[in-house]
Amino acid sequence: MAKSLLALGSRHQRRLYSSTSKLTHHGIHVLQCPDQVGIVARISDCLSGHGANITSTDIFVDMDSRDEPVFNSRCQFSFNPVQWTREEMENSFQEIGKQFVGKSVVNVPGMDRDMKVAVFASLQDHCLVNLLHRWQDGMLPVQIECVISNHVRGEDTHIWRFLKRHGIPYHYLPTTKTNKREDDILELVSGTDFLVLARYMQILSGDFIARYGKDIINIHHGLLPSFKGANPYRQAYEAGVKLIGATTHFVCEELDAGPIIEQMVERVSHRDTLESFAMKSESLERQCLDRAIKYYCEQRILRYGRDKTKTIVFA
Amino acid sequence: MAKSLLALGSRHQRRLYSSTSKLTHHGIHVLQCPDQVGIVARISDCLSGHGANITSTDIFVDMDSRDEPVFNSRCQFSFNPVQWTREEMENSFQEIGKQFVGKSVVNVPGMDRDMKVAVFASLQDHCLVNLLHRWQDGMLPVQIECVISNHVRGEDTHIWRFLKRHGIPYHYLPTTKTNKREDDILELVSGTDFLVLARYMQILSGDFIARYGKDIINIHHGLLPSFKGANPYRQAYEAGVKLIGATTHFVCEELDAGPIIEQMVERVSHRDTLESFAMKSESLERQCLDRAIKYYCEQRILRYGRDKTKTIVFA
Amino acid sequence: MAKSLLALGSRHQRRLYSSTSKLTHHGIHVLQCPDQVGIVARISDCLSGHGANITSTDIFVDMDSRDEPVFNSRCQFSFNPVQWTREEMENSFQEIGKQFVGKSVVNVPGMDRDMKVAVFASLQDHCLVNLLHRWQDGMLPVQIECVISNHVRGEDTHIWRFLKRHGIPYHYLPTTKTNKREDDILELVSGTDFLVLARYMQILSGDFIARYGKDIINIHHGLLPSFKGANPYRQAYEAGVKLIGATTHFVCEELDAGPIIEQMVERVSHRDTLESFAMKSESLERQCLDRAIKYYCEQRILRYGRDKTKTIVFA
Amino acid sequence: MAKSLLALGSRHQRRLYSSTSKLTHHGIHVLQCPDQVGIVARISDCLSGHGANITSTDIFVDMDSRDEPVFNSRCQFSFNPVQWTREEMENSFQEIGKQFVGKSVVNVPGMDRDMKVAVFASLQDHCLVNLLHRWQDGMLPVQIECVISNHVRGEDTHIWRFLKRHGIPYHYLPTTKTNKREDDILELVSGTDFLVLARYMQILSGDFIARYGKDIINIHHGLLPSFKGANPYRQAYEAGVKLIGATTHFVCEELDAGPIIEQMVERVSHRDTLESFAMKSESLERQCLDRAIKYYCEQRILRYGRDKTKTIVFA
Repeated sequence: MAKSLLALGSRHQRRLYSSTSKLTHHGIHVLQCPDQVGIVARISDCLSGHGANITSTDIFVDMDSRDEPVFNSRCQFSFNPVQWTREEMENSFQEIGKQFVGKSVVNVPGMDRDMKVAVFASLQDHCLVNLLHRWQDGMLPVQIECVISNHVRGEDTHIWRFLKRHGIPYHYLPTTKTNKREDDILELVSGTDFLVLARYMQILSGDFIARYGKDIINIHHGLLPSFKGANPYRQAYEAGVKLIGATTHFVCEELDAGPIIEQMVERVSHRDTLESFAMKSESLERQCLDRAIKYYCEQRILRYGRDKTKTIVFA
Repeated sequence: MAKSLLALGSRHQRRLYSSTSKLTHHGIHVLQCPDQVGIVARISDCLSGHGANITSTDIFVDMDSRDEPVFNSRCQFSFNPVQWTREEMENSFQEIGKQFVGKSVVNVPGMDRDMKVAVFASLQDHCLVNLLHRWQDGMLPVQIECVISNHVRGEDTHIWRFLKRHGIPYHYLPTTKTNKREDDILELVSGTDFLVLARYMQILSGDFIARYGKDIINIHHGLLPSFKGANPYRQAYEAGVKLIGATTHFVCEELDAGPIIEQMVERVSHRDTLESFAMKSESLERQCLDRAIKYYCEQRILRYGRDKTKTIVFA
Repeated sequence: MAKSLLALGSRHQRRLYSSTSKLTHHGIHVLQCPDQVGIVARISDCLSGHGANITSTDIFVDMDSRDEPVFNSRCQFSFNPVQWTREEMENSFQEIGKQFVGKSVVNVPGMDRDMKVAVFASLQDHCLVNLLHRWQDGMLPVQIECVISNHVRGEDTHIWRFLKRHGIPYHYLPTTKTNKREDDILELVSGTDFLVLARYMQILSGDFIARYGKDIINIHHGLLPSFKGANPYRQAYEAGVKLIGATTHFVCEELDAGPIIEQMVERVSHRDTLESFAMKSESLERQCLDRAIKYYCEQRILRYGRDKTKTIVFA
Repeated sequence: MAKSLLALGSRHQRRLYSSTSKLTHHGIHVLQCPDQVGIVARISDCLSGHGANITSTDIFVDMDSRDEPVFNSRCQFSFNPVQWTREEMENSFQEIGKQFVGKSVVNVPGMDRDMKVAVFASLQDHCLVNLLHRWQDGMLPVQIECVISNHVRGEDTHIWRFLKRHGIPYHYLPTTKTNKREDDILELVSGTDFLVLARYMQILSGDFIARYGKDIINIHHGLLPSFKGANPYRQAYEAGVKLIGATTHFVCEELDAGPIIEQMVERVSHRDTLESFAMKSESLERQCLDRAIKYYCEQRILRYGRDKTKTIVFA
């Protein structure tokens, strides 16, 4: 590994390096629309017409939907912002979206602002800690607006110190059976682009999900659709499974039933205890949530299928 | 790899090789009983007293049972049949079983007869074919008594020719909703030691299971306890999972709910179709069933836990 | 799983099903050329201009080559052969190849003939047997011209009977240190599109490789670049590795050094013997070779990088 | 998962919990000696004679050594320290060691002191950080004596603050080509039980290894025996492998050649860059080193084979 790359310990260094090392910029375009002949031609004409160059493309036409095939694409391209300004680019892709009656999104990492996220966690903090460290290492291109928890954390905890050092607020919102503090939460997260539930053990209501209106990513400590709800470790342990797993998914109103983004497993045996199930699972949860957030920020995830209950992951 | 080993193509050659290459024999002893102090001392005294030598031991004391700890062991040992006859050995281990009020089983591969099995399959034959080939290669130390199916197979099929060549009967037992032919089946399998359901799509009744009274191993083409019952491929496909799996388990009265022996998974993506789900799963099913039967014949599997719903696999 | 799909046991049935179930045809186009702006636009214009519809596209621009970026694409599309004849299609894509000074290949499975292959095997036949069974099941879209071996196989062997039934010649070509029978082999394989070495333990000379001039795929029973050459099982065993592996690669003049296509691993422990290393590896070898051939026939593999020593696999 | 278990955030809480929840203690006995009849009987007599109860045993007799079979065992047992004092236990097992002319080690976690370790790291700190966090979470039963590095770390770094908070010294020992500071290091680590090289990029001399005389565990960022020496990421990248890996091993005089303890792999494709190779590998390295240290502290690792170049891992 080149020394210059690996030497970059801090978030700022790594970022700096990325932006100064290239004269051209790299954009990502994602399109989802009803399929028809000529979509790819239209996109690639648009790009080549502005001197942009495709470096990678993924196209998936979903033939399986009840009604009509749906076109999905993710395209990475290099361009010169002098030749094609960010504003013109935005307009070009909005036109394409209109023409094909679909959703057309363009993003230029390093030029556009990072997505804003609020992270939720209850008592367990292995996913939260991992997420913060990954962010500190410059591996997660997000702006963390705040951490929200229904558990108090003292000034002597690693998390409290970490957040203070980085100027990230920690909101302690104790919940009761009748008050989930959803109004308070909504106010706190109103400026975010998406939410991450990093082992948040409170159930967000359908009303909350609808009012928030943007994506919510959850890590479930079981291999969905098995082991929904409470105590998936115990459920798996008592079922005598030989593989345990973790699942990252989008949150929908039905508990633990939203579109699956990523799943990972590890082998267990009769020698494993409930405690070692937890330890092995925690390692899976960290990796599984980490990967899902990274994919999400890189615009790699699209919902598809009937009622959009499945995900395309252009990995 | 030593030429002499890999050169053994046929079942008979490989077997021959195994028995002539050693002057001593190797036995396997398995014990399951309530835990108490001194069990291992008793077993090892017995072995060393007869000049036998332990080559490998696995012990697992289940502390988690509702009532009392249960001792489980599997011990491999080498011995000289002149010094310790098979009959004396049997008596020695029966005594140990009595002393500790448990189940004590001893087996000497190559000296004792192979276990007798009947294999069941419906239309799909990838598991059956794989099992037959593994058996032909000398990898499965069983005696196949017969193949039972609710589907007819013609004389021009690979399976029919294979079975004929090896003198194994193929019983075609067409079933109806009201007649599962369980009496006929029971008669056919009365001499067997265990049954293998290699994608047999008929549900055996609790009555049948009770009357047969011995172990029945099933391969389920889904990752239990998810996707029980019919069409697990379709269930998994519609759930949008990112990992598909196969499960080998003992059959109990409740459908797809018996103790899990082995599980395997493979990654799927949005590009996978129902057909590619099937293809990937079939590969898992072959391996998963193969491994379970091998473990079973090598006396590696014990049932444990409350109501014996889980398995110890001394792999 | 739909009954109609899984019911298809034989090669002919499955094939028949595939061709009658669709009114449109599906083509695959692969392009490799120096990168420039507008390549994708040109391809997609060509397709949409003939009423064809892209169903899936993979593009990878290799920035890492010493000189200039190289464009690589694989595109699947549906088309109506009445509207766009196979001949016109060929011409269209040849023009694209010329325009961009690259290699442009189009293939229409079911309409174009299957690729012709000769399969080589020495004494070990687990890879050969698996390949033949996969082919019989309709899973490998190739025409097997012949099997070539430096080992004799009698009329009572499974392979001999299988080949006879399907009318595939078995050529026994005993080799000596000074005569590898390469002239004989070249004559036998002159009509093939590629060769598969399914555990062929003879080294083909650089001269042979050059004269044959087409792709040769080999399965190596070790995790390259470790354990090149003879006895990789023993090499791995003596190195005390905790993971063993298999590698499929293109053959080049240097032994076991050609571009890697696919690799698979399995866990081993101190309990594994040289014999169990072989058994575990054989399972990997079957799967690893199987996958590589499938990818190859589906035009998913491209060589790239400096001196083309690496592979793109559009999986 | 039981709330009471997972609620334990800190090292001290978790430890406290472990020791107060049980009235009996658990010991581990490991024996390595020339094989003979009666060893297991002797051990189990000793245990049962003192009212101790075996809860788990692993025995492996290595038949493959050049000269004579070697017996290896690891036994976990519960005992009452009132009935059998730690001192008597020590004497009992020393006697067994003498009797069989082997190495007999007994350890009682919670009663005996934790092993003392010094951790070495150069510039990269992902393995060091992970190790410190795992230790803080009470998952690594070691006493960290100090961290040694040839790189300076400022007071504003995470590691510096972490170490200061826990009172662990950080020794900055800049090295030159002619002065590896081995005398200084030896003095600093004289009181330790073993060393961990958590990405320490300096080569320790054979002289140092001999003078230290105890075990040294290293994480190598490549799949040994491939990719020894410098820049394994680049080596793997240029070899075009489809799987990358990490290896934990004991250090011996020959570089990257000591007995392998654990190996892990992850899939890579043509889309991976040198930077993503590093990111994927770093994740493997953390897990692979973590597991090896845990196994080591739990007395699960024994060296065996000719010249002791392989490891038994009683996992």
